[in-house]
Amino acid sequence: MMKCYFDHVATNPLDTRVLDAMMPYLKDDFGNPLSIYEPGSKAKEAIENARGQVASLINSKPSEIIFTSSGAEANNFALRGIALARQNEGKHIIVSRMEHHSILNSARFLEKMGFAVTFLPVDKHGMVDPDVVKKSITKETTLISIIHASSEIGTIEPIEEISEIAKEKKIIFHTDAVAAAGNIPINIKELGADLLSMAAHQFYGPKGAGALYVREGLRIVPLIYGGIQENGRRAGTENVPAIVGMGKAAELAKEEMNARIEHVRTLRDRLIKGVSSVENIYLTGHPDNRLPGHASFCVEFIEGEAMLLLLAAKGIYAASGSACSSKALKASPVLLAMGIPSGLAQGSIVFTLGKDNSGDDIEYLIAEFPQVIKRLREISPYAKGWGIKGEGGECIVQK
Amino acid sequence: MMKCYFDHVATNPLDTRVLDAMMPYLKDDFGNPLSIYEPGSKAKEAIENARGQVASLINSKPSEIIFTSSGAEANNFALRGIALARQNEGKHIIVSRMEHHSILNSARFLEKMGFAVTFLPVDKHGMVDPDVVKKSITKETTLISIIHASSEIGTIEPIEEISEIAKEKKIIFHTDAVAAAGNIPINIKELGADLLSMAAHQFYGPKGAGALYVREGLRIVPLIYGGIQENGRRAGTENVPAIVGMGKAAELAKEEMNARIEHVRTLRDRLIKGVSSVENIYLTGHPDNRLPGHASFCVEFIEGEAMLLLLAAKGIYAASGSACSSKALKASPVLLAMGIPSGLAQGSIVFTLGKDNSGDDIEYLIAEFPQVIKRLREISPYAKGWGIKGEGGECIVQK
Repeated sequence: MMKCYFDHVATNPLDTRVLDAMMPYLKDDFGNPLSIYEPGSKAKEAIENARGQVASLINSKPSEIIFTSSGAEANNFALRGIALARQNEGKHIIVSRMEHHSILNSARFLEKMGFAVTFLPVDKHGMVDPDVVKKSITKETTLISIIHASSEIGTIEPIEEISEIAKEKKIIFHTDAVAAAGNIPINIKELGADLLSMAAHQFYGPKGAGALYVREGLRIVPLIYGGIQENGRRAGTENVPAIVGMGKAAELAKEEMNARIEHVRTLRDRLIKGVSSVENIYLTGHPDNRLPGHASFCVEFIEGEAMLLLLAAKGIYAASGSACSSKALKASPVLLAMGIPSGLAQGSIVFTLGKDNSGDDIEYLIAEFPQVIKRLREISPYAKGWGIKGEGGECIVQK
Repeated sequence: MMKCYFDHVATNPLDTRVLDAMMPYLKDDFGNPLSIYEPGSKAKEAIENARGQVASLINSKPSEIIFTSSGAEANNFALRGIALARQNEGKHIIVSRMEHHSILNSARFLEKMGFAVTFLPVDKHGMVDPDVVKKSITKETTLISIIHASSEIGTIEPIEEISEIAKEKKIIFHTDAVAAAGNIPINIKELGADLLSMAAHQFYGPKGAGALYVREGLRIVPLIYGGIQENGRRAGTENVPAIVGMGKAAELAKEEMNARIEHVRTLRDRLIKGVSSVENIYLTGHPDNRLPGHASFCVEFIEGEAMLLLLAAKGIYAASGSACSSKALKASPVLLAMGIPSGLAQGSIVFTLGKDNSGDDIEYLIAEFPQVIKRLREISPYAKGWGIKGEGGECIVQK
């Protein structure tokens, strides 16, 4: 059976060139980077080399990169680290309804600690309106955090405009670029964010490595206290092999970025065209301003989970909503925030393409997908009109 | 040149059998454990298998193991997670002066949040007195955290007795077993702790994997918020290869524990005997009740850093104080807390042995070490009597 991996927002395979770069640090070069003898200094050099590679990916200084264990850790660190560092200046922060759970739940933690949080609405494409950001700012606002690109709907947010607004008002601005970094070009100097989160496994690097860009001179309260690793800003013995892998993956992502984008965009457009031919299926997220390998839909009268299972039985691996909540079986808050009715939001399906997908993968999907939908609709009470009036309301997703 | 790695508290080499177990998850089995299709469920199964292996190492239930990215993260999670979860019952916590920086600095963070923290004194062997623990308890005390075994001086603390006291008073008890777990037998049911921290790279597992044992039914506030990983208690895409490695390393540690202990203890005793023949050198930590592979000393009239460099030049890799602060160049707070004068504490040297060390390694060290000391004393102004009176005071370390 053919196997088509269309779930690159959940995780990517590790590039064999990245694994090759990691192997020495999984074998002989196992030293602790804080040790002053040779195996230690070798590990330390490897980490600093990786820091340079990750910095280069977003055009920052190496000293502005702090390694973490994941994108989620970077997001927790950014939100809580800045909110706490600046709490004497104000206790109001702004996030959007597009954010990942690591931001949303960190924001709710801060609410319990006495912070006020504004959760910004979005339009039908999942776009945050910079004017709405501006109007949400109060004298108490110290931090704004807006996702760079949504892993659920692919929409790329107007980060530069929001950065400008934050800068004008002297508010710190963080962007969760976990789905974006390594997949679309990011120049931090143009983007203007003060903090930016990344995860290596989103661009063919290893799991267990993430990074937070923190603009030079910005004070941040650590999330993990302990030793003097990462200049005292993130403790714990460094995961040297994973950090080395993140560096190598960043280097490759930078070198191959344009070719990868061109490749997945071409496939993605064919996929959207093919899948859209099914009746009562709607593209979610922005039609153009979206991640190049990202195609997300809501399929009427069908549960996302059922689609995933039938597709998986054909060797097609896709997602329904965010990977981090895919077993939670609730309609995605992101889709609901865009005004998609909850019944329709249940029929969410997300295909995300990677550099190793081929045209054949797309042809296979386009051939199999309509059959899966047909079969599911045959057994769906919703497809036969049950409950439609109750669930309905205006459907504002675009076709 | 001979190479002797005597710094197993800093980090261990990865066991090749552990790396072999990890490799499939660094290659084909790269799925996200939350995905419902086959590559995802395979990763999920691998994690649950590892959870069982780690649980078995300490005789807990698998559901009581939460994977983290490091021992430091586990310590931060335990201390702050319990302090916050119980803050309505009281805001006093007790730790010892033997703790790792990840506990000490987390405690200081809690102080800033309005918690009161008692830092318990220790005796000349670095032992915490259970009676002193008892006397430090107030109506406000919600949490006690005492290190299981010190990585700096090897002393094993009276964890069972302290557990008993905590249980009687209905106070939660955490132990940082990062240096102990996998190296000495731990039966959590006998030990009685409510929480226990571990790190895989301390027992030939990979960097980037740690775990926190949390007794069933105990509420803990997450350190890293986000998705539903680890039952919603620790978010972030799981580092599957590292977790699998931690499981395999735990399994091997359990199987080979007695043989490993016997091996390193025999070598360690020879090392202590040989090294102690040098003049004005003092064993630090408890003479008997210490980690089996651990030998730590203070050498009079010499700086630890200088010893490390000269030993490293001979291919002998050792530590001076805690790995996490070895570049901080301050006299170790742990040694000072034991009453060792600061001048003498500067001459700290720690040799920690592992399963792959041999008798030849020990012979080599015993042959080379006295020469290193001799050479350093020839150039040391302290050895010529300079400043001795100012630095001195009663030296209470045992010979």
